[in-house]
This record gives sequence, C-alpha cells and structure tokens, in this order.
Amino acid sequence: MIEQINTLSPVELRHLIRKGTYTKPTSGLAPGYTQANLVVLPKSLAYDFLLFTQRNPKPCPVLEVSDVGSRQLHQFAKDIDLANDFPRYRIYKKGILQQEVTSVAPFWRDDLVSFLIGCSFSFESELLAAGIEVRNITQGVNVPMFDTDIPLQSAGHFHGKMVVSMRPIPENQVVKAVKVTADMPRVHGAPIQIGNPEQIGIKDVFKPDYGDPVTINEGEVPVFWPCGVTPQNVIMASKPDFVITHDPGHMLVTDIKNTALKYD
Amino acid sequence: MIEQINTLSPVELRHLIRKGTYTKPTSGLAPGYTQANLVVLPKSLAYDFLLFTQRNPKPCPVLEVSDVGSRQLHQFAKDIDLANDFPRYRIYKKGILQQEVTSVAPFWRDDLVSFLIGCSFSFESELLAAGIEVRNITQGVNVPMFDTDIPLQSAGHFHGKMVVSMRPIPENQVVKAVKVTADMPRVHGAPIQIGNPEQIGIKDVFKPDYGDPVTINEGEVPVFWPCGVTPQNVIMASKPDFVITHDPGHMLVTDIKNTALKYD
Repeated sequence: MIEQINTLSPVELRHLIRKGTYTKPTSGLAPGYTQANLVVLPKSLAYDFLLFTQRNPKPCPVLEVSDVGSRQLHQFAKDIDLANDFPRYRIYKKGILQQEVTSVAPFWRDDLVSFLIGCSFSFESELLAAGIEVRNITQGVNVPMFDTDIPLQSAGHFHGKMVVSMRPIPENQVVKAVKVTADMPRVHGAPIQIGNPEQIGIKDVFKPDYGDPVTINEGEVPVFWPCGVTPQNVIMASKPDFVITHDPGHMLVTDIKNTALKYD
Repeated sequence: MIEQINTLSPVELRHLIRKGTYTKPTSGLAPGYTQANLVVLPKSLAYDFLLFTQRNPKPCPVLEVSDVGSRQLHQFAKDIDLANDFPRYRIYKKGILQQEVTSVAPFWRDDLVSFLIGCSFSFESELLAAGIEVRNITQGVNVPMFDTDIPLQSAGHFHGKMVVSMRPIPENQVVKAVKVTADMPRVHGAPIQIGNPEQIGIKDVFKPDYGDPVTINEGEVPVFWPCGVTPQNVIMASKPDFVITHDPGHMLVTDIKNTALKYD
C-alpha cells in the first residue's frame, strides 16, 4: 500500500485524500513536489494575517492566497478542494484547539480565506540531493520542532514567537546546508541558528515541543530553520475567534515542483 | 549644491526634503542606500492591494507596510514622515491624476496605509559594481520605462499590466546582468525579457511611455526589468477612489543599504 501510494501523482493523491481513503502524514509522498501548510481565517482577519506574513517571511513564506470563500487555487494546484485535500485539519476557537477532522467542508463559510505557506519538506529533498543526510527521514520520524524566544514582528491582531525545525548536520556540511536552503526562500530559506540552541531559548534539543526527537551524532551540530508551524503558535498566542489549520505533517501536495520554487 | 547634496546621509536628506528645500529626483543621492516607491491607500483597499503585491512580487516587491494611519516606519527608516519625506507626490482620484504636490500632510487621513515598494535604483549600483555600464546614469537621464501587454494576477479591486524599465547591455555582459539582479528579488530581481521588445508588446524601444529614451549601441541588447511604476499603471486601470503615490524618480531615501537587501 505504502509503496503504491509513493508512485501516485499529486492529483491522484489529492483524490485519494479527498475521498477520506488516506488520512496519514504526507512526508515522502509525490517526491519532488511542493507540500504546503494551511491557515484559513475569516476575511475580517485576513489583512492582519497577510501583513503578518509580509513582516515575517522566514517562518511564514506565503505560497498562495485563495480568493474569499473559494476552495480552489489559481497557481499551486488545479482540481483541488481546500476543504478536503489535506489528510487532517485542526479547528481553533479563540486560540484553543477544538478538534481534529479529516474534512472541514461542514465548517466552510463564504467569508473564509485560505493561506498556503511553504514547508521545509521542500528543501529536505534538496539537502538529500546535495548529499546531506536528513536525520528525521533516515529515522522515519517527524522532524523535531521547538518553540523559541525569537520575537516576530506584530501586525494588527497577530503576534507571537518563532517555531523552528532542527536537523543535525555534520560540521563539514553546515556551509553546504546553508547554501542549499538559502536558495529556497519560499520554503523558509537559510537557517536562523547554527549550533547554539540556548541562544534562541531552547533548553533541551532532545525534547522537541512538536514532532519527534532525533539522534545527534558526534561531530554533528544542531541546525535550526524557521518553521511553518509558527502560524499555529501565533494563533494560540493571538486567540482569533475562528481559524482552521492543517494537522502538522498532514500537508497539501501541490502540482508545483520544489525546484521550480527556486527560480520563480 | 548638487555635490554637497551627494554627501548627505539618508536622514539628512529626508530632513531637507521634509522642509521642502529639495524637491527634485533622488537618483544618485545617498549612494548605496535603498530608495523606495510609494503607494498610499485607505485601509478599505489595503487587503486587496497587499494581496495584489503578494501575487505579483516581481513588479511589486513590498519592502514595508506602515501601520494604519501612521506616517512612521519600523524597519526601513527611523526619523521619518511619510507625508513629507518624498520630494514629490501624486494624488489620484478614481484612477485619474489630480495633482502633484511636495507634501501630502494636508491630505492625510487616519485610515491611510502606506506601502513601500522596491526600486531598481538599488540594483543599478550593483550592476555598476559588477563593471556593467548603466546607460541612463551615463547619459544623466531618467531610465526609460514602457507599458507592456504582460498581464498581472488580479486581486479583488486591482488588475492591470506590467510596466518595465529598459537598460541596454552589451551581449557579452547579459548573463552577468541577469546574475547580479537575480540576487536581488526585493528590488525586482532578474529581467523579464531579453532582446525582444515586441514579445511583450513594446513597439518602439526609443519611445518610452515614462522616463527618457537612451542610446542603444551596436552589440547591445535591450534588457527589460519589472518596474515599480507598475502600481501607478494598476491604479489608473483599477480606478480606486483615492490613492497617493510618489512622483516617479522622486523616491524615499531609506536607512537600509542595498547590499543588506540581498541577504535579508
């Protein structure tokens, strides 16, 4: 089943997810294609949130914004239903997680705006292509993610701190890892911290706030990238009335190749 | 006087402009510092315009957006008055240019939002540093700019076509010019067309729609970059009730160095 799933195209995967047949994490699916984080808000909050992403492009690189009320996209996917094509969604009210569901069609409203935000899955394939091991892939677990004390620029209703993802990199490959990811600003770009977790308020690199811990071997340094889970942290801090997000790891698989993002 | 002006810092220049002492184009002033285009709109139009810039980042790379009603900035300048620190402004009503003024303080409203948009002046200094002549600088004229038939992605109220700037580049330096400017996406980035003006709806490269014509020598090709005058074209096409812009060439001189934009 998994092997068969791995051979499906983005649109075939979206069909399977839309029917509710596949509800698991999307890591490794449709290799080479961009996956995306989701934030859905009422139009009344959309200006503040769009401005928040403009002011904080590293953790919140916007790939595409839907038209008001629309469940379609113009650029990143044809044949898409934003209310059904993520395997799992989260519903937040006043900053509190209310429930996780596999479809948000019953909750859809004409005033909702969807924000697709870049995901580090896109640069992981580039790191591998450059000969850099990605530990969370090797170990078959979710990438470790951490709350930090890095303040973000506020915008109207929205404020909060950055969430980062961590990957251990051999010392002699750190420069290469910076170069590879710096080339991809639309999916978070270069690291924000190299080798010193205390500097950004992380007490224990083996106790992530989201995702799973990974091994750090002798001669490796922990490298931290801005993370697309940041908006969920910002939503918890800012407590807007109603927001839908994806469930971390359960992303939208788009029709756009990762490499295309580099030259856009 | 001009020589003395060239030695002023960005904040000294803004003070001079604020007092109304300097009302001319800003090309060549405060060398190495980022200059910016301006669009000021009522908050009711700000979401659509911000979304328009997100969907069209090449002609409309947003450097910073002010808070609602504020004449200050957070990132690009301290000690600034957005209503006085551009040498000349334009006021548009329903898409029609009403007047040009040296201060918009009498027109300011509590619901106005200011958008600073990147300007190709920033990459011209990098082209020069790379040993590439910039013809409009050599000839001491405004860069030639053209309307094109390149459609932009619409967003709510806003729609229109791209405006481009043109610089003749020797054939053997075109690749270098692409590389230099591709590195600076926050100030329009790489060219949109090389050597074939008809392809983008330009009939005569010696008859610009804005700015001045420049000489194209034997062995040079016209190279076209997305241009920050695009928003003014979009405003004329979209006819919003009330918009303030700068007068082309009469830019804001910011405190941020051009080179800093490359590594942001």
